[in-house]
Amino acid sequence: MTHEIAVIPGDGIGQEVTPAAVEVLESLDIDFEFAEAEAGDAVKAETGEALPQETYDLAASADATLFGAAGDTAADVILPLRGAVDSFVNVRPAKAYPGVDAVRPETDLVFLRENTEGVYAGHEDRLTQDVSTLTRVVTESASERLAEFACDYVSGDEHDGFTVAHKANVMRETDGLFRDTVRDVADENGVETDEVLMDAFATRVCLDPTQFDVVVCPNLAGDVLSDLAAGLVGGLGLLPSANIGPERALFEPVHGTAPDIAGEGVANPAATIVSAAMLLEYLGYDDQAAAVNEAVEATLADGPRTPDLGGGASTEDVTEAIIDRL
Amino acid sequence: MTHEIAVIPGDGIGQEVTPAAVEVLESLDIDFEFAEAEAGDAVKAETGEALPQETYDLAASADATLFGAAGDTAADVILPLRGAVDSFVNVRPAKAYPGVDAVRPETDLVFLRENTEGVYAGHEDRLTQDVSTLTRVVTESASERLAEFACDYVSGDEHDGFTVAHKANVMRETDGLFRDTVRDVADENGVETDEVLMDAFATRVCLDPTQFDVVVCPNLAGDVLSDLAAGLVGGLGLLPSANIGPERALFEPVHGTAPDIAGEGVANPAATIVSAAMLLEYLGYDDQAAAVNEAVEATLADGPRTPDLGGGASTEDVTEAIIDRL
Ligand SMILES: CC(C)[C@H](C(=O)O)[C@@H](O)C(=O)O
Ligand SMILES: CC(C)[C@H](C(=O)O)[C@@H](O)C(=O)O
Repeated sequence: MTHEIAVIPGDGIGQEVTPAAVEVLESLDIDFEFAEAEAGDAVKAETGEALPQETYDLAASADATLFGAAGDTAADVILPLRGAVDSFVNVRPAKAYPGVDAVRPETDLVFLRENTEGVYAGHEDRLTQDVSTLTRVVTESASERLAEFACDYVSGDEHDGFTVAHKANVMRETDGLFRDTVRDVADENGVETDEVLMDAFATRVCLDPTQFDVVVCPNLAGDVLSDLAAGLVGGLGLLPSANIGPERALFEPVHGTAPDIAGEGVANPAATIVSAAMLLEYLGYDDQAAAVNEAVEATLADGPRTPDLGGGASTEDVTEAIIDRL
Repeated sequence: MTHEIAVIPGDGIGQEVTPAAVEVLESLDIDFEFAEAEAGDAVKAETGEALPQETYDLAASADATLFGAAGDTAADVILPLRGAVDSFVNVRPAKAYPGVDAVRPETDLVFLRENTEGVYAGHEDRLTQDVSTLTRVVTESASERLAEFACDYVSGDEHDGFTVAHKANVMRETDGLFRDTVRDVADENGVETDEVLMDAFATRVCLDPTQFDVVVCPNLAGDVLSDLAAGLVGGLGLLPSANIGPERALFEPVHGTAPDIAGEGVANPAATIVSAAMLLEYLGYDDQAAAVNEAVEATLADGPRTPDLGGGASTEDVTEAIIDRL
């Protein structure tokens, strides 16, 4: 069975790390068909559109999409692309790698972020010269869909339920609906949950990240709290993410375009290659996914390393070392 | 001139640390008149109301209010009390103290948090069984008032302008209005600013908190990002805060009621005493404020210390040691 994979490198180091991840996928004995498309600042400068219709259509029809990064147009690219795959959950692991400097090396968290609504679905208005408003939307159905995914995610031995992070003491109706719905679905599935206010989470995760494991949150809370966890593990540079929909999915490193080093061939491809491992898992290639993850870990620990980790290797050196270890 | 100070201890350790801070204020040669009032879980259990009208009225008429903490009713108490003093800015310093364990001991930040609107002014609705909404409000006038305060705050030699943290790439109209208004006011006042997305701030402040100094943000962003900074300096236990209005103000430790140790007389009074120092500064007693801050710092460094900092001293021991150092 052939899997069609859309490849959207985007801007900056996206142009370097995305082909690296494709090389890794190509080195496996799996029948992939890759189709590349453009998005981001560069294509906008050329055509006026950050996300051309054919790119959107490709992501909306491929089995899975691998996305690199976009510059100033990031929101105009990634938010519609998440919509193209009808992604209802953004899966964001934040784990410190052995041998990589981290403020909290013991961090090992997974955020399951609601990916369709909250302030992101927000209709905005400028009511008067003085007053602007945004309508934040939280639905029972989206909260349910996320909770069902979360219950499935924590089934098995590795996890003891999950934590719901929210701000229902202030957003009583909306985050209250989110929290209650998620909790009800978990109860029905016999999954244990606890809850934490998102501000308290921000303090407590710094003091001791091992208090938490899987964290389920509304859209913006997930955005900020997962980026906080990224700070604890030493930056966005190594973190992958998956935008999962019912029939297709999109995978992207959490980092941006890194304009300071773009074009030099020294970008660290690890985050995108680990995102490709999430893609493999999504398509059912669990063994290959595990092999890629192990090869990345070994390479981070023993080298070669790119300059961001104190080494002198190129993107290509690291990619080859990872492929050699497969 | 007599200053009327409302004292609202609230619940849990609020009952212990608030009197400690009053003792410190009483030890100074200033003409204070203290008036105590009730708020929180305990008074709600008795009377059905977490914030009795006379408590609200007292805060709304006193020159300054010292608040301890409230339990489950925190939002029902503190949000109206902030309204009672018409507080448009929440000042939250997050500084690591020498001798106190911190993930990032070099942290020295001040958050200036918008204190009246954002999701906190949010009108909520349950539109259908499925759909709930919250209307987030951002006004030019509140953003202006905050920005003027911020410009004033950073005038002098200690600060080089401030950073605006926001999420205007998603909340384009509302956070866009916030960012643009704050920036315009700063420009008019010749104050330098830069800006950062709130998610990027969460990562970057962990990696290197010295990148930032004074951070101006919308209400919920300020709530979460200042609590994150609290995690970097070792917890909420030592952090003060000020809710400043045009004619009066309310001061509170950032910590909660600590039900696990409440009633034992071992709560650390430092955060409330430093909040009282902010009160002194607000009323124009800069020398006395500096003296209190120095006495707290010396006591945190050399003891006696309460159990949260590894010591065996009581709230009273620490309070006396601070007063002795004045
Ligand atoms: C670029 C931006 C719209 C996006 C988001 O807020 O989701 C980014 O921060 C992310 O987390 O992927
Ligand atoms: C208790 C709660 C309503 C409050 C807030 O969100 O402002 C608290 O978290 C704080 O920061 O003082």
